Amino acid sequence: MHILPPAEVGMAADQVDTPALILDLPRFERNLERMAATVRRLGAGLRPHAKSHKCPAIARRQLELGAVGVCTQKVSEAAVMVDGGVANVLVTNEVVGDRKLDRLAALATQAWVGVCVDNADNVAAVDAAARRFGATVHVLVEIDVGAKRCGVPPGQPALDLARAVAEMRNLSFAGLQAYQGRAQHIRDAGERHDAARQAAAVTAETVALLERNGLPCTIVGGGGTGTYEVEAGSGVYNEVQAGSYIFMDADYGRNLGADGESVRDFEQSLFILSTVMSRPTAERVIVDAGLKAYSVDSGMPLIHGMSGQSVQRASDEHGVFDLQPGMPNFRCGAKVRLVPGHCDPTVNLHEWIVGIREGIVECIWPVAARGAVF
Amino acid sequence: MHILPPAEVGMAADQVDTPALILDLPRFERNLERMAATVRRLGAGLRPHAKSHKCPAIARRQLELGAVGVCTQKVSEAAVMVDGGVANVLVTNEVVGDRKLDRLAALATQAWVGVCVDNADNVAAVDAAARRFGATVHVLVEIDVGAKRCGVPPGQPALDLARAVAEMRNLSFAGLQAYQGRAQHIRDAGERHDAARQAAAVTAETVALLERNGLPCTIVGGGGTGTYEVEAGSGVYNEVQAGSYIFMDADYGRNLGADGESVRDFEQSLFILSTVMSRPTAERVIVDAGLKAYSVDSGMPLIHGMSGQSVQRASDEHGVFDLQPGMPNFRCGAKVRLVPGHCDPTVNLHEWIVGIREGIVECIWPVAARGAVF
Repeated sequence: MHILPPAEVGMAADQVDTPALILDLPRFERNLERMAATVRRLGAGLRPHAKSHKCPAIARRQLELGAVGVCTQKVSEAAVMVDGGVANVLVTNEVVGDRKLDRLAALATQAWVGVCVDNADNVAAVDAAARRFGATVHVLVEIDVGAKRCGVPPGQPALDLARAVAEMRNLSFAGLQAYQGRAQHIRDAGERHDAARQAAAVTAETVALLERNGLPCTIVGGGGTGTYEVEAGSGVYNEVQAGSYIFMDADYGRNLGADGESVRDFEQSLFILSTVMSRPTAERVIVDAGLKAYSVDSGMPLIHGMSGQSVQRASDEHGVFDLQPGMPNFRCGAKVRLVPGHCDPTVNLHEWIVGIREGIVECIWPVAARGAVF
Repeated sequence: MHILPPAEVGMAADQVDTPALILDLPRFERNLERMAATVRRLGAGLRPHAKSHKCPAIARRQLELGAVGVCTQKVSEAAVMVDGGVANVLVTNEVVGDRKLDRLAALATQAWVGVCVDNADNVAAVDAAARRFGATVHVLVEIDVGAKRCGVPPGQPALDLARAVAEMRNLSFAGLQAYQGRAQHIRDAGERHDAARQAAAVTAETVALLERNGLPCTIVGGGGTGTYEVEAGSGVYNEVQAGSYIFMDADYGRNLGADGESVRDFEQSLFILSTVMSRPTAERVIVDAGLKAYSVDSGMPLIHGMSGQSVQRASDEHGVFDLQPGMPNFRCGAKVRLVPGHCDPTVNLHEWIVGIREGIVECIWPVAARGAVF
């Protein structure tokens, strides 16, 4: 069964079926351009993370603005990107299991494909898969620069693993993956940037150690929407891997601006369009978008334009809030724009992104890698 | 781009690609049979909620065991069910907007289709759509019996709305929707059952009021996995709308049993199969399943068989936990079964349910209504 698009091109924005992901195209385009310009000005490359949009149409726009390639988090996402015309994809993650590694190696016969490692057994497994397909896979050693997720410690362990990669016949040592994921979400800008600077310092030492040992890093990748200026200006990172900047969300809005609606760096461009489906009391408003239309891992969605007010309760297909001072008396059938707490897992719930300009549907993009968890 | 299944029929269960939804078929079948038998014994009908599984293959099994039809929460889910051979579908929700109502009315020319209302304007809109398609739509008046979501108050407002339905040419008044959604998740069994009994008492009064006014209720629907015995034995509800009982989850496990693994009524049959993809320290374990493989709205997933221990942190594609006393030393590549906090939005993240019996993949069912949010 095919999920039909909620709109047609040319339709008025308020006629779009709900709940739907809608994208304010002028804001989105300004976000695209601002990030590209800032990273370029600071002397780094931009490799945007496609896990945010899962959409080759958006990846192609990023490449047109000078991106060196894209990142994905999964092999199946990478396959969608290559299939959609992206010639350079880095899987910013370890890939474990022969079924996945075969798919990765097959992809490396069609495009420049990179992957991360943090374990010598896995290095051998990636090489074995690459040999089976006669492919060369580009490999980054992931170091843990404070995210406390994957990665070997910086320094000697990274050198040891880089040597193991360099010894493999079908692997090409490409550099370091040094993403400080925790830093992205620190509320205080000073603390957030300090965490990113510490990561950059540690990374610089490991880059130098590898260099001294004959293993120069072509790629030093990391950074995100919360800290991109630090990495881009660090002189260490040469590929910034931000993803969310194109859409923004309530969580990043709290970091980079006041209320998720106007922000210092990037504008909220992505919304869940919902419809008021019930007004059972004078106060209570029910919209037709719940846990299957937005992710709540980083908090409830904000109600756009309502001074930071949010949906108060969500069930599978309902969002509930009470009218607050200053809100209009939303009638049944009224459309309400919601700002997701976390854009990436929210986009992953939808089949389509509906692009809007001046109140008219201009484009409908399939979220082609939605559900690509493998 | 098509998301390929993570397995083939006949494959060993531990060869299934990850993260994947796997279903323990013997447990699932016992759950199906227990609910069917209990509700029958207590004298009610069973109309299972298909929003949990979104899978016509499962709906057909429920019908074979005597279910009177299925529930869905969305028109697009109902379309998938009718397309999959289900002849009787109740949308247990208000449907607002002409695009959706046209789809509902078109469906009502192919199958018995019911919908809920809580607003007179919406009654007129449903009737207008039914007229456009020459269809008859069956309508339940939703009353708020304590869930504080949609629904008119019980008593006179319900009678007024039922009369409005009965006056419409293309609508057939079918009864009451009286779901106490909040009661399902009350931890204490006594309090939970009391809330359901109060809902049943209030519903009984409204049923009697309508009956006295010449509007008998063919269907009185409600109930869920947390309270099904109360509704089934109430003598008021004649259709129990439980959904999660087939799969169970950590939240319902805490209500109906000890740890989500062995429960009084139903067994945990649904798991997210994940792979250990990184062991960066002696304590830290990283699995390849994160926010895009399970919903965390009702808490982090449990690690199956590990005495209630759970994943401690999740990002988009990673789950992280530290080894605890009693856990094996999970090696890179080891498979780990996770119990989702909330089954419904977790199933909605996946394209496929992989059925396992005696360690072998027996079936692979498409989650055909995944993403059917309209």
